[in-house]
Amino acid sequence: MSKERIRNQALLSKVVSAEEAAAYIKDGMTVGTSGFTPAGYPKCVPLAVAKRAEAGEQIRLNLYTGASVGKELDGAWAKAGIINMRMPYQTNGDLRNLINSGDVKYQDVHLSQSGQQVREGFWGKIDVAIIEAVAITEDGGIIPSTSAGNSNVYVEMAEKVIIEVNTTQPLALEGMHDIYSPLNPPNRKVIPIEKSDDRIGTPYIPCDPSKIVAIVMCDIPDDCRPLGDIDEDSKKISGHLIDFLESEVKAGRLPENLLPLQSGVGSVANAVLAGINGSRFENLTSFTEVLQDSMLDLIDSGKIKTCSCTSVTLSPDGVKRFYDNIDFYKDKVIIRPQEISNNPEMARRLGVLTMNTAIEVDLYANVNSTHIMGTRLMNGLGGSGDFTRNGYMTFFTTVSTAKNGDISSIVPMVSHHDHTEHEVMIIVTEQGLADCRGTNPKQRAKKIIENCAHPDYRPMLQEYFDRAQKEQPNQHTPHLISEALSWHDRFNKTGSMKLK
Amino acid sequence: MSKERIRNQALLSKVVSAEEAAAYIKDGMTVGTSGFTPAGYPKCVPLAVAKRAEAGEQIRLNLYTGASVGKELDGAWAKAGIINMRMPYQTNGDLRNLINSGDVKYQDVHLSQSGQQVREGFWGKIDVAIIEAVAITEDGGIIPSTSAGNSNVYVEMAEKVIIEVNTTQPLALEGMHDIYSPLNPPNRKVIPIEKSDDRIGTPYIPCDPSKIVAIVMCDIPDDCRPLGDIDEDSKKISGHLIDFLESEVKAGRLPENLLPLQSGVGSVANAVLAGINGSRFENLTSFTEVLQDSMLDLIDSGKIKTCSCTSVTLSPDGVKRFYDNIDFYKDKVIIRPQEISNNPEMARRLGVLTMNTAIEVDLYANVNSTHIMGTRLMNGLGGSGDFTRNGYMTFFTTVSTAKNGDISSIVPMVSHHDHTEHEVMIIVTEQGLADCRGTNPKQRAKKIIENCAHPDYRPMLQEYFDRAQKEQPNQHTPHLISEALSWHDRFNKTGSMKLK
Repeated sequence: MSKERIRNQALLSKVVSAEEAAAYIKDGMTVGTSGFTPAGYPKCVPLAVAKRAEAGEQIRLNLYTGASVGKELDGAWAKAGIINMRMPYQTNGDLRNLINSGDVKYQDVHLSQSGQQVREGFWGKIDVAIIEAVAITEDGGIIPSTSAGNSNVYVEMAEKVIIEVNTTQPLALEGMHDIYSPLNPPNRKVIPIEKSDDRIGTPYIPCDPSKIVAIVMCDIPDDCRPLGDIDEDSKKISGHLIDFLESEVKAGRLPENLLPLQSGVGSVANAVLAGINGSRFENLTSFTEVLQDSMLDLIDSGKIKTCSCTSVTLSPDGVKRFYDNIDFYKDKVIIRPQEISNNPEMARRLGVLTMNTAIEVDLYANVNSTHIMGTRLMNGLGGSGDFTRNGYMTFFTTVSTAKNGDISSIVPMVSHHDHTEHEVMIIVTEQGLADCRGTNPKQRAKKIIENCAHPDYRPMLQEYFDRAQKEQPNQHTPHLISEALSWHDRFNKTGSMKLK
Repeated sequence: MSKERIRNQALLSKVVSAEEAAAYIKDGMTVGTSGFTPAGYPKCVPLAVAKRAEAGEQIRLNLYTGASVGKELDGAWAKAGIINMRMPYQTNGDLRNLINSGDVKYQDVHLSQSGQQVREGFWGKIDVAIIEAVAITEDGGIIPSTSAGNSNVYVEMAEKVIIEVNTTQPLALEGMHDIYSPLNPPNRKVIPIEKSDDRIGTPYIPCDPSKIVAIVMCDIPDDCRPLGDIDEDSKKISGHLIDFLESEVKAGRLPENLLPLQSGVGSVANAVLAGINGSRFENLTSFTEVLQDSMLDLIDSGKIKTCSCTSVTLSPDGVKRFYDNIDFYKDKVIIRPQEISNNPEMARRLGVLTMNTAIEVDLYANVNSTHIMGTRLMNGLGGSGDFTRNGYMTFFTTVSTAKNGDISSIVPMVSHHDHTEHEVMIIVTEQGLADCRGTNPKQRAKKIIENCAHPDYRPMLQEYFDRAQKEQPNQHTPHLISEALSWHDRFNKTGSMKLK
């Protein structure tokens, strides 16, 4: 192993095999790991733990991370039946099934609050932290890899720290991170970021070397996945959104170079950023969660000077581009702990333009981001609440139908509420855009039906809305309570929200 | 009129009658006023405007305030049919009826965001601001009365400013206010409050004297209302909450002197603070919205040194006590703009303990704060979302039943969602307390049924929850979608949520 990777002489003696390191992890423990959507999570040690469980050892653990992690952790541990409690986000199919069946307990926490709550003691003691790093400094400082997430919190709070030095992650990542840990109240200070590219912390996670019990050299790369092509619907959504931004600039409600962009993960989000890259906007800024391929394009084109994020999650092509040109990107990417990237203090002060994806939206601009038909967890909330609740202008995008048209993404009442009418401002589908600012619920319903719903469902929505107003006139928010969720019930029973 | 009240010589010539001032307000205008829950709102000029409308003049206005205002404004304007669009909060019976019928448009905005959105241009041009003051300084600075609210924003944004100097409000209020206006992004700076009693602004609202078109002397006092006695249920809620705070201190998750208290308005909130006054806790702090009678008790007893708020809303007895001893209270009360008192930056940094009232709560800790049976607006959201979304520990209190037991405040699914499972931590009823931190939805349902529901409804809730899990096993959040809102439907049809 290279002395560039482990710069503290004494720590060289801690280098062990993944199996030896995994031996520190015992049944009943709580483990906090690095990793965010899935980038920068530990791989070799989790696989070694899974192997023990698969060999028959009784081992159940609480697993707390930054956000979703890859197949070597969420995947392998789900398959091996290891996880007892999981937080704060996941995207793994096997794990999702176990969460829905109740075999894995899961709480869907706002990502910016998850680390804070651990530090405050709300989640119990952290026995072991497993952190992926590109290197360890002379003082034991951990230089993270492709994400910061909650790693600083788990290192701070854990009794023991295991470090996976990942040799597939280039040393040149050093210097991109900006690690800052707020104190707990009543001693918390101002987070002194006033521009999205301000740096306020250290390029490493401070760590008392005596807490580091094992170091494992790992050569498994991040579980990155290719991006699909941008489809026609996503292009239309992007077009509506960019037209709207243009009109807001014209109206004087946005500066010429907009305000810091936050964009959720996924194909629509990717299309929106691609659209912005093709627009006339320049000198843009970003204060987001995940640096995706399309953000790399914005950096390449010079439209964005710096991307502030907590995770670099790219397609295989994107990874190659990022690593081949890492010296170019070095001063253009800031990777912050999620407690900072997603902090309401920052989102509010910087005036972030938030763009997130909805599963469904209702007539009154309430948004479901998490539950299919109100009961089955999809991925989780992620940072959408952190940003939406505190952003300057808050957008939700969705294609107006799903399942070949059998599901309308615009429904009378959403079947699970993650974002409410009080903070959701603008809804965009491929059909059009509804600006809900300054509207009462009845005005909002009209806009959403006319501008956002699919033509197949527009008459049904209008009929519901008309009848709700007629049957009981004195309702600020008209609903037929006995039918508000009937579209979901019909889908459950017939496989379609459409009337037969 | 006294030169102590109007200290700018030139402005003395602007003193006119309420009717003359009201002449500046014309059909179609947008008016921004002082006032918060109902304290410090203008009275004489609004009454003069109402008189014109009652005499047959066509006059429709948009009315933006801090929060609810008293009968001379919301009441008189509602009765006279003046209001077109209203935001961001109200509590007036006549106005509520007009909002529910749709005659008045109303958007329920997070209070901390309402002023910001006006400054950002989301609510159009402000034609006239009407601000209640105790005095005007040499430079035209407006010294507010019993609230700060959004007054600074309306003064800044309005084309014309009308000032009501209210002689029932003592001059000694001068010095209590701390007016600070953030800039719009991208120029917004850190709000430099690190302790709840830090002062960062001016004791007056800066105002270009040339914008002041009229000054009216007014002698109508705030429309303050007596408080009811603290009932047994409220005492029990307070008891459960204080026991819990004790246990959190013991567990090391709260300091001995707790963290800044935020308490909603109303009788349960009042009881909780009264309970804290009778507890062993000392050296407390507060960072809240409204200073109520019970907060005055905490100041009197020395338990709280300083109360930070945006409004002083007391009972008639409380007003007398406050004014009789105003020199004692002078350095113990800080009245801030609601954009600061309710700001997420502050709530998160200071680690506010938020205590707000729910209309209903569901099995999974979602909270309805605004809509009766999901459709009829009660008062509005107020600051509950500002605080809950960003607080350190977030409590919701409610008596477990309403309408003589015909309504259960714990329901399968709330009929309107204002606060979600993602940020609601602790539910308290007279029956007990459910700590929902670190739970999945199924664990949460068990706690809420067992600890919080009324015994009359516990078996019904348990039956729903059991059947939901049985009929469809793989649900993270078990619901029978066809029955989730059936309790509300039954109440609408039979007058009771109970099964006959």
